[in-house]
Amino acid sequence: MAYFKAYSHIGVHEEMLKDHVRTSTYRNAIMHHQDLISGKVVLDVGCGTGVLSIFCAFAGATRVYAVDASDISLQAMEIVRENELSDKVIVMHGRIEDVEIEEKVDVIISEWMGYMLLYESMLGSVIFARDKWLKPGGLILPSHASLYLAPITNSQRYQDSVYFWQDVYGIKMSSMIPLAKQCAFMEPSVETISGENVLTWPTVVAQVDCYTIQALELETITATFKYTSMLQAPLHGFAFWFDVEFNGPVRQKSKKQANQSLDAQNATPSNKKKKADVSIVLSTAPEDAPTHWQQTLLYLFEPIELKKDQNIEGSVTISQSQQHARFLNICLKYFTGDQWYVKESVMK
Amino acid sequence: MAYFKAYSHIGVHEEMLKDHVRTSTYRNAIMHHQDLISGKVVLDVGCGTGVLSIFCAFAGATRVYAVDASDISLQAMEIVRENELSDKVIVMHGRIEDVEIEEKVDVIISEWMGYMLLYESMLGSVIFARDKWLKPGGLILPSHASLYLAPITNSQRYQDSVYFWQDVYGIKMSSMIPLAKQCAFMEPSVETISGENVLTWPTVVAQVDCYTIQALELETITATFKYTSMLQAPLHGFAFWFDVEFNGPVRQKSKKQANQSLDAQNATPSNKKKKADVSIVLSTAPEDAPTHWQQTLLYLFEPIELKKDQNIEGSVTISQSQQHARFLNICLKYFTGDQWYVKESVMK
Repeated sequence: MAYFKAYSHIGVHEEMLKDHVRTSTYRNAIMHHQDLISGKVVLDVGCGTGVLSIFCAFAGATRVYAVDASDISLQAMEIVRENELSDKVIVMHGRIEDVEIEEKVDVIISEWMGYMLLYESMLGSVIFARDKWLKPGGLILPSHASLYLAPITNSQRYQDSVYFWQDVYGIKMSSMIPLAKQCAFMEPSVETISGENVLTWPTVVAQVDCYTIQALELETITATFKYTSMLQAPLHGFAFWFDVEFNGPVRQKSKKQANQSLDAQNATPSNKKKKADVSIVLSTAPEDAPTHWQQTLLYLFEPIELKKDQNIEGSVTISQSQQHARFLNICLKYFTGDQWYVKESVMK
Repeated sequence: MAYFKAYSHIGVHEEMLKDHVRTSTYRNAIMHHQDLISGKVVLDVGCGTGVLSIFCAFAGATRVYAVDASDISLQAMEIVRENELSDKVIVMHGRIEDVEIEEKVDVIISEWMGYMLLYESMLGSVIFARDKWLKPGGLILPSHASLYLAPITNSQRYQDSVYFWQDVYGIKMSSMIPLAKQCAFMEPSVETISGENVLTWPTVVAQVDCYTIQALELETITATFKYTSMLQAPLHGFAFWFDVEFNGPVRQKSKKQANQSLDAQNATPSNKKKKADVSIVLSTAPEDAPTHWQQTLLYLFEPIELKKDQNIEGSVTISQSQQHARFLNICLKYFTGDQWYVKESVMK
């Protein structure tokens, strides 16, 4: 056995299971939709250790097909056996594109989200599974996902990574600063910030309806934004985060309704509360409890001093790299204080 | 420029500089020996950003040769220039074995210590520099190093890595435990424990006198131990840590004296206090402030329930791997409760 490989597997799954926000929100969502799962057939796309499949079995599913391409599925088989669910949970080792399931399914469940929602995400596999295996009117959990972007300030981070070099135990090391900036801020950075770092309400960069989205729509995503800073503070960069909702198929929205809702969300600061009234939400926002997804930060090489109520307008484009399918190219263009800026980076 | 490479450089040097215990103890040691540095010629082996070289210049050194084989030496040149010390600090980009210095030196300073003292350590380069460039009677900082080993208990770590799998959100995952143990405990683990984890006084596994040690002595190190547990507690493993002392050449000990002192240290719990009276010590012990070296842990696959005053006897051998010069083979043999155990691992 290759221990290093096994280690990376175990480490990743341990981290995900120990992400209590993630795992318990999925469990809550499954229990919330128990009437649509009990007595039904479920497909778990990328089952990992099988935790979501077993939650579905606990919720009364007749059969659960648990599919994973990685070796962790061998462990999932053992775990299913240990929980005496081998008659209900059928673990399949293979890519969702390759496995043969004996029946159509009523429910698809998947934890497919990557950093900033789309990085190394398995949404493409969920779309494939939906089109091939889901009965019409079936349930998809999660059902909707939103990717957010907001301007942020983070003097502590800038201090630790940049200003630190100005005086190190009485020694001037400012000559390190250009390189330090390149190293710290060239690529997107996955880290945890707090609600206090966020300068104003986020905009919605992408909204995914898992019932209707097509793979092509994910190749390039573009959104415009217009922020008004609520604070006088240095602008240090922009943060991405996401949330997913667990809505039943009855709440499925038409494209037009989805767009209206998008407009409404951009306009009102209280979108999160409104959503929480009607559905279960797994949020990775800075103001919510931290998750292993943290937030994804794009830091500027030079901070911009913002006045209160100063506007920042622009656009962001996220596209799959042509060279490396895994990589995401992120192009951010923004205008503030009478000047245009461009920040291009690659999430790799 | 290869940013990834630069990043790893900057990240490593940033971490070392921000290790306040490390950097400020070196500074204190330099100031403590100012009479032996002022007006003298210094060689800094593995200078990194040049921080120790500049401290020596601040202490009055006439000339400092700052040598580093990595690209960070190019940054060190800039930093020296920025501090207007280019006439005193001569940065040389190359291996210590290859560089040509124009004179013999009075002082060698180096921060050569790796994890568990010897892992990826640069002690071999210091020995080379001493034999080739140090004047007789010259100063070496640090002058002495000791590697310690002690039995430890760490129920929290065992809980997090092993028992965690017994019940994950109501799901039995005990079948993960064998693999989890392999992954968590197969290799030595660099982590921070506290004094409360240590079951009794440590033994000295190796004692290095930088004035006299030969490279051959580092290839294989063997030591025996006999511990008496001060607590009734599960034995979860053994921890390595080290300290280094900054003694002047006048305090140089003969081999016989060093051995006597080694015996005395094994016998008395107060060795640390005694040393602190007479010299500056940089300690990475669990009971002292954490450093970036942390401690190096060897965890057992199965804990052993120890009674108070129960003995643990055995031996430890640390040897350079034949296959990979960087790797350390660690073989631990121990006898307790009428049974022999062997734990072999590779630090890689």
